[in-house]
Amino acid sequence: MPLYQIVNQEGLLSDTQRAEIAAGVTDIHLDLAGGLRQFVNVVFQEYRTGLGFNAGIIGAPMVIAGNIRAGREQAVKTAMMEAISALVIRVSNISPKDLTVSIADVKASNAMEGGHVLPEPGEEAAWLAKVGPLLGLTK
Amino acid sequence: MPLYQIVNQEGLLSDTQRAEIAAGVTDIHLDLAGGLRQFVNVVFQEYRTGLGFNAGIIGAPMVIAGNIRAGREQAVKTAMMEAISALVIRVSNISPKDLTVSIADVKASNAMEGGHVLPEPGEEAAWLAKVGPLLGLTK
Amino acid sequence: MPLYQIVNQEGLLSDTQRAEIAAGVTDIHLDLAGGLRQFVNVVFQEYRTGLGFNAGIIGAPMVIAGNIRAGREQAVKTAMMEAISALVIRVSNISPKDLTVSIADVKASNAMEGGHVLPEPGEEAAWLAKVGPLLGLTK
Repeated sequence: MPLYQIVNQEGLLSDTQRAEIAAGVTDIHLDLAGGLRQFVNVVFQEYRTGLGFNAGIIGAPMVIAGNIRAGREQAVKTAMMEAISALVIRVSNISPKDLTVSIADVKASNAMEGGHVLPEPGEEAAWLAKVGPLLGLTK
Repeated sequence: MPLYQIVNQEGLLSDTQRAEIAAGVTDIHLDLAGGLRQFVNVVFQEYRTGLGFNAGIIGAPMVIAGNIRAGREQAVKTAMMEAISALVIRVSNISPKDLTVSIADVKASNAMEGGHVLPEPGEEAAWLAKVGPLLGLTK
Repeated sequence: MPLYQIVNQEGLLSDTQRAEIAAGVTDIHLDLAGGLRQFVNVVFQEYRTGLGFNAGIIGAPMVIAGNIRAGREQAVKTAMMEAISALVIRVSNISPKDLTVSIADVKASNAMEGGHVLPEPGEEAAWLAKVGPLLGLTK
């Protein structure tokens, strides 16, 4: 956590484009929402051509659904969604109207990394000092 | 947004069945919840045989998870889930007990289309007048 | 509902490991949260190597996202996430730092099985007496 799931049609993105999007989403999250780089996950879930529909007919929608810890200000979330949208539109050549970006707020107490309940936003340092060694984290 | 993700076992649905389900879900959403046809996405996420489990053993569950803007009355959501269930059972020949349909309410402020924050339900017309031209929407 | 979606890299788990994880997650859910075995779904959504990213670079994160009916105590949810984490780490040989487990609370009124709104936690028996025969459930 955070987890950004990127649902898109296979063949739309090259390895290079995926790498640029994943790195960019990670940086945007850390710059704006903070948290620990180690725990930022981005997963592309690609669907076969013909399995995506828009407006009731076959299309190629791209959906980026972020699950982040609850507690961030709305302005932070808005800025993150704007930056992610701009990044993906720039890198992927997707038509902007085919791109949806959304964020779901997950209570820290409802998520674990490696079996340890997540810290609230802002309490990462104390958490890392205690849990980091147990998970073999170097930083 | 809305996004309806349909998780099912590959081979269960033909292209024709998927098209009928996608069109039907889209119409049900627009008829009951309103909104803009352009932004209704349906994506089938098919899993290989053997990767679905029900009651602890291999099975073929189908799950339809809708993410819609928050603010709709419970009665509207219930009617939507009933109509979607009936549609999918009719079209797919799935055993009703293998079908789950759920809806998650997403705050409009937590989602963007093409980089623009979504309007609240009922405010689509004003939004479309402003944002539509930016996204190249004809309607 | 519940639905446990397990997002992981293909090739990481054998059929035997998946079966053990699915059975174990099902048992943990029933032991701690209660409910009906018939409705516990576990689906593995595997992504191709190269489509998962952690900390901005290619990795193999595993994410287990549970959607359960709202109303369970936090202590129950914490115990479930701990037990699921321990199970998956033991069975899969994954590095604990690569495993995220989260739970989302879904209102019973926002979900249906076979077209029937779910009961609130604790009201399963009455529900099953009424709906079970309609769905052909033997128990």
